[in-house]
Amino acid sequence: MDGDAGGIAAGYSCVSHRARRAGSLARAARACRARASVVAAAIAITASLLVAGCAAPGGPNLDAALTIERQGSFFVGGRTIVSETLSTLPAYMPKGTISVEQMYVRFQVPAGEKRAPVVFIHGCCLTGKTWETTPDGRMGWDEYFVRSGHPTYVVDQVARGRSAGNIVAINAVRMGKLPVDQLPTVFSVGAEDAWMIFRFGPEHPKQFPGMKFPLQAAGELWKQTVPDWIQSMPTPNPTTAALSELAQRLNGAVLISHSQSGIYPFQTAIRSRAGIAGIVSIEPGACPAAEGDMTPYKGMPILVLWGDFVDQSPRWAPRLKACREFVRAASAAGARAENVVLPEIGIAGNSHMLMQDSNSLEIARWLAAWLAKNVGR
Amino acid sequence: MDGDAGGIAAGYSCVSHRARRAGSLARAARACRARASVVAAAIAITASLLVAGCAAPGGPNLDAALTIERQGSFFVGGRTIVSETLSTLPAYMPKGTISVEQMYVRFQVPAGEKRAPVVFIHGCCLTGKTWETTPDGRMGWDEYFVRSGHPTYVVDQVARGRSAGNIVAINAVRMGKLPVDQLPTVFSVGAEDAWMIFRFGPEHPKQFPGMKFPLQAAGELWKQTVPDWIQSMPTPNPTTAALSELAQRLNGAVLISHSQSGIYPFQTAIRSRAGIAGIVSIEPGACPAAEGDMTPYKGMPILVLWGDFVDQSPRWAPRLKACREFVRAASAAGARAENVVLPEIGIAGNSHMLMQDSNSLEIARWLAAWLAKNVGR
Repeated sequence: MDGDAGGIAAGYSCVSHRARRAGSLARAARACRARASVVAAAIAITASLLVAGCAAPGGPNLDAALTIERQGSFFVGGRTIVSETLSTLPAYMPKGTISVEQMYVRFQVPAGEKRAPVVFIHGCCLTGKTWETTPDGRMGWDEYFVRSGHPTYVVDQVARGRSAGNIVAINAVRMGKLPVDQLPTVFSVGAEDAWMIFRFGPEHPKQFPGMKFPLQAAGELWKQTVPDWIQSMPTPNPTTAALSELAQRLNGAVLISHSQSGIYPFQTAIRSRAGIAGIVSIEPGACPAAEGDMTPYKGMPILVLWGDFVDQSPRWAPRLKACREFVRAASAAGARAENVVLPEIGIAGNSHMLMQDSNSLEIARWLAAWLAKNVGR
Repeated sequence: MDGDAGGIAAGYSCVSHRARRAGSLARAARACRARASVVAAAIAITASLLVAGCAAPGGPNLDAALTIERQGSFFVGGRTIVSETLSTLPAYMPKGTISVEQMYVRFQVPAGEKRAPVVFIHGCCLTGKTWETTPDGRMGWDEYFVRSGHPTYVVDQVARGRSAGNIVAINAVRMGKLPVDQLPTVFSVGAEDAWMIFRFGPEHPKQFPGMKFPLQAAGELWKQTVPDWIQSMPTPNPTTAALSELAQRLNGAVLISHSQSGIYPFQTAIRSRAGIAGIVSIEPGACPAAEGDMTPYKGMPILVLWGDFVDQSPRWAPRLKACREFVRAASAAGARAENVVLPEIGIAGNSHMLMQDSNSLEIARWLAAWLAKNVGR
């Protein structure tokens, strides 16, 4: 629960004892604190590079301490509006200026050699938490990709999580300034509904045989869901403008989207190709239309990735079919596009939430290798 | 903007060149990846302890790479409800089960010697972003305390940020199942209002002379604000139950609150003292009543901390006065309580958002020293 990933590290051990276990070395640290020598600093730099670079065959070292060059968070996008319905409480003024449509971004840049920056974009009814520690307490893709050398940027879509929603219409209705039908469209996804959408089974509580989502921790997944204001957003969704700004700031990033955000990297590329080094769309709710303009994707590395049981889902089967058609059309127009269905390459049992399934890091390793081959540094 | 804290590191340099600048060492990393030797691992552990332990006098090394033992995120608290007004959209079922009142927690545990875990609790209209990278792009208190050896837990209060709000009443009104006056009470704070509340000046856009909030980046602060559902929450606010659960899980944590959450650590201690190693309440909106029961605070290290210009604020001056009375009463009853007003100890110019002011890390260093003295390991 508190994210100790020790249990999944078997097979990846490079540095077999964590620094915290080397208690006898604390004396050296205290000596350093008293007087840091240039020699010690040089050793430290060398060794932190060694740690960052150490990797078991096929993946990074998941057991060693993690060395971060820099980390933090910031916003991209956003605009100010003036409203007279900010508050119905005496303690806060109804009139004032607020910022809306900004997008929260948290990032970590690993020490040592760098691969391409990746941007993780969550799906419906969720936040950037999607990519962090899994519901059953294992390492998330965010940390896995940092350990693999990728500077990693995890966003909260506009009006979700730490990216503020806009509640002025709610207060306007409450004050009698707008009719009830002007209330924002906002929804929460119920666990029973999400069960089918996330393809844990054909219907709640039935399971697909061999399905790999850690259902014993399903309650922790439901805690990750948040109200979704997407239907109250302008078109195109401001998240795509914010993603474009972020990609350009990073000067070459892979946009990795999921589900409802699946189409955003494509929409971002239509806006501008600048800064987009590649697109990974995981189980997109929609792909661009196969008969549309493929110019934005020419020469671009594109992966559309699917889990298992898709053909057993009336919701998802047509989406996979349409994405296959898109990938064919994009490839014919010069995109370096692939549609990969995991069971077709020998990885079975994945749900729609494959970044949280029990084999999530196996898929992450596969994806990191795909990026190394198709996007490069 | 992207969190490169290089500019503020002057004076703290221990390892003077970052690992990323030692490009020639990349060959060593590649050799390691090919075959990790036990010798290299031992050097790595030694040096990562040296890096973790290296500290300039009075504070941690802010320039070196940051070594993390483990990190991640999870939820505490939460309960399920069944609703028939989850959605008004055909794509999502109106009836289902959702989780409400859970609290999101993101954590980092530094490598090396540990100090007491700290829990950072943001104030009104904000999220855990408060403690991360400052609006003008400097290192936040979250990272500073990790670098100081404190396992650090940053929360989003219940119904804020990544801790889901509850929108079922909005849809119930929209569906005609509830009258308009049953809409949730939710507000956004306008920049002009926040200007006074945060004590940037007596009124917008006037400034207090020498005030240290980085106003050139005020727009980035306004992006941090989110709608606040606190008035729609049950009493006591479920955040306090979640904080109690978190403190007990950490088996001894310092609860560091701010502004609207200022009183939460005290309310948490009334619920149970278990797991609370100390309380730091920064500019609380309220302290416990001085005539109340002081039993929960007996023997407990308590700091109530204030910035500058308090006496010039009709909103804050009475709160400081009441907190002085509480600290006196708590001390008389055996608490180890202090009320500290920064200008009275020679630190001038701080706003209500002192963790983001231009001298934020000076205050962090002072606070870390207070914790070392009063709470210990």
